[in-house]
Amino acid sequence: MTKHLEREIEKLKKRILFLGSLVEERVQVAIESVTTRNRELAKEVIMKDYEIDELEVEVEEDCLKVLALHQPVAVDLRFLIAVIKINNDLERIGDEAVNISQRVESITKSEAMTFPFDFSVMGAKAVTMLRTSLDALVNLDLDLAFKVLTMDDEVDELNRKAYDKAKEIIRASPELVRPLINYYLISRHLERIGDHATNLAEEVIYLVEGEIVRHGKWE
Amino acid sequence: MTKHLEREIEKLKKRILFLGSLVEERVQVAIESVTTRNRELAKEVIMKDYEIDELEVEVEEDCLKVLALHQPVAVDLRFLIAVIKINNDLERIGDEAVNISQRVESITKSEAMTFPFDFSVMGAKAVTMLRTSLDALVNLDLDLAFKVLTMDDEVDELNRKAYDKAKEIIRASPELVRPLINYYLISRHLERIGDHATNLAEEVIYLVEGEIVRHGKWE
Repeated sequence: MTKHLEREIEKLKKRILFLGSLVEERVQVAIESVTTRNRELAKEVIMKDYEIDELEVEVEEDCLKVLALHQPVAVDLRFLIAVIKINNDLERIGDEAVNISQRVESITKSEAMTFPFDFSVMGAKAVTMLRTSLDALVNLDLDLAFKVLTMDDEVDELNRKAYDKAKEIIRASPELVRPLINYYLISRHLERIGDHATNLAEEVIYLVEGEIVRHGKWE
Repeated sequence: MTKHLEREIEKLKKRILFLGSLVEERVQVAIESVTTRNRELAKEVIMKDYEIDELEVEVEEDCLKVLALHQPVAVDLRFLIAVIKINNDLERIGDEAVNISQRVESITKSEAMTFPFDFSVMGAKAVTMLRTSLDALVNLDLDLAFKVLTMDDEVDELNRKAYDKAKEIIRASPELVRPLINYYLISRHLERIGDHATNLAEEVIYLVEGEIVRHGKWE
């Protein structure tokens, strides 16, 4: 690898990590807006999403430039393609944070309604998955990447619990269907964040092992 | 472009179109399994998903090979990156077809329950979006790509209607919450198929115009 290409790849690593930390922060604020029923925080996440969108576009353009100028092969080529896909997933995690925030209005409308489900626990798990997958990427660490895949099962399980809980309360108090569906959908958005983090971790495994582990083939 | 690269790109076009038509067929069967309440059809979609997964992996490997061997630049480079991303979206549409099929068991459990919402109309719109975005890709046709973006609004609107309808019936008959949430989620999966088709169309616009139209900037 030429010095120049090496430098470009280092720059890209930094940018994708910066995007990753920005996305992580937005997810955390979105979760806080749910647990504290804070519409102002929710609005902030929605309003600032354009920053993530812009950064995603810039990172992809940078990748295309590096591909065209340096024509990397083997490991470097694979790394650049992984960055393009991870970039895409990070932007979609940002969208999920926006989706969560958009539901805060509905759940705060029913003053009396609180949903007996700990979104801070589920949210923390989803955020940990995201952070771990980014750590796995920087350090090309297989163990960390596999850890993310295991955590995904826990988040899925919590999503199932949220669904059962929502169903149970709707049966008893059908007038609460609107906030309850929205609470359940917040859980689904968190579960999707877990899915995107899983995609990310699978990209890292693919990168390190040079073989396709997607679609559950790693089991 | 060398003759050899030209041939490889033609081959890739054919493969991605083949994957696209396979995915389209699976979505159609999934919708039929809902409208005819047919668990056998649903099972078929779930069982055969591995075919889509395998094809996705092969297409990506092919793209990487072409990138490494031919080191394309400009339009060809952009096309290959677009194929990698479109490939990814097609596989996820396949997953949505599986998700739809997985809900058929739940909705067919409540014998008496029918949901007054025309999934065949919404499904047909989602399938048309997918087909149109693939047509836009083959012909690099901007008009077709923009048409997909407009259709997405219609599918979103239908999803909102499904949500309102489900909410209304749950309020009156809370014991039906389980099948109703599942009916609503089928609508959401169709809406997500529309989103993926939109991603695809945006890739085509990006490819043709060489500028980023994602994140609503084309308006």
